[in-house]
Amino acid sequence: MASEVAEKERKILVAVDEGEESSYALSWCLSNIVNENSKDTLVLVYARPPRAVYSTLDGSGYLFSSDILASMEKYSHEVAECVLEKAHRICKDFNAIKVETKVEHGDPRDIICQLAEKLNVDLVVMGSHGYGLIKRAFLGSVSHHCAQNLKCPVLIVKKPKSHDGN
Amino acid sequence: MASEVAEKERKILVAVDEGEESSYALSWCLSNIVNENSKDTLVLVYARPPRAVYSTLDGSGYLFSSDILASMEKYSHEVAECVLEKAHRICKDFNAIKVETKVEHGDPRDIICQLAEKLNVDLVVMGSHGYGLIKRAFLGSVSHHCAQNLKCPVLIVKKPKSHDGN
Repeated sequence: MASEVAEKERKILVAVDEGEESSYALSWCLSNIVNENSKDTLVLVYARPPRAVYSTLDGSGYLFSSDILASMEKYSHEVAECVLEKAHRICKDFNAIKVETKVEHGDPRDIICQLAEKLNVDLVVMGSHGYGLIKRAFLGSVSHHCAQNLKCPVLIVKKPKSHDGN
Repeated sequence: MASEVAEKERKILVAVDEGEESSYALSWCLSNIVNENSKDTLVLVYARPPRAVYSTLDGSGYLFSSDILASMEKYSHEVAECVLEKAHRICKDFNAIKVETKVEHGDPRDIICQLAEKLNVDLVVMGSHGYGLIKRAFLGSVSHHCAQNLKCPVLIVKKPKSHDGN
């Protein structure tokens, strides 16, 4: 029965961000969930912070000028590219599965849940912490929200402490 | 790289209880995580309610007589056997992986976290709701607690609504 199931085309959403933990979650998924003969598609999802978040970043209520906002927007775009490039590199190291990417502006909790539903994915994989720059802006765990609200199985991966000495 | 990793012996803890969702989580794990060539060991863990829980079950503060407690203890033992027998049957349907069982008295949150640590498992699989009889006694989600406290990856599986019409 297992071999039959392994033949089916699964769609696995992996939430990626700037952190080491999301890279670890992706690697873990590739080596433990995806197998070389599978027809799985990985959908790498990166949530870019919405503009409103920048103004809360320093916690002082200071409103940034449009110049600063524009450069933060550019920075955020570059970060997104860098994150996805790294994720693609990790996928390449493992095997030749199909990889798609999605970048959306907004709260990662909403983006992950909405995309998982829309794409009808079989599994969502994510780190337990995260989400980089916006970690401070979105209090409360993204993984907890997703585990509660997603209808599909959710795999929450923690980076072992021994790997990074934290 | 994936094929090398698939060769390693993984230990996967699956939390089982009386509910349909835990059976579904186990089946999902078998068909999506375990593959036929793997040397994986599944550790089926069932948490039996501690005696103290029985006295809170009716919510009225009524204390049961020792006769009633003894028959509840017997019932709880039979439930444990039944749950594990069903879980074994599900495993048999899928493939010939190694299966171990652990039954412990206590709060499932503690039991799952302690055993996962002690056995140094690679993954914990569980339903999102649960835990049967003691659902009412242990408010707060078992899966949430485990996702927060376990050091290893946690897979939380929800039973699709279409399967049981809920």
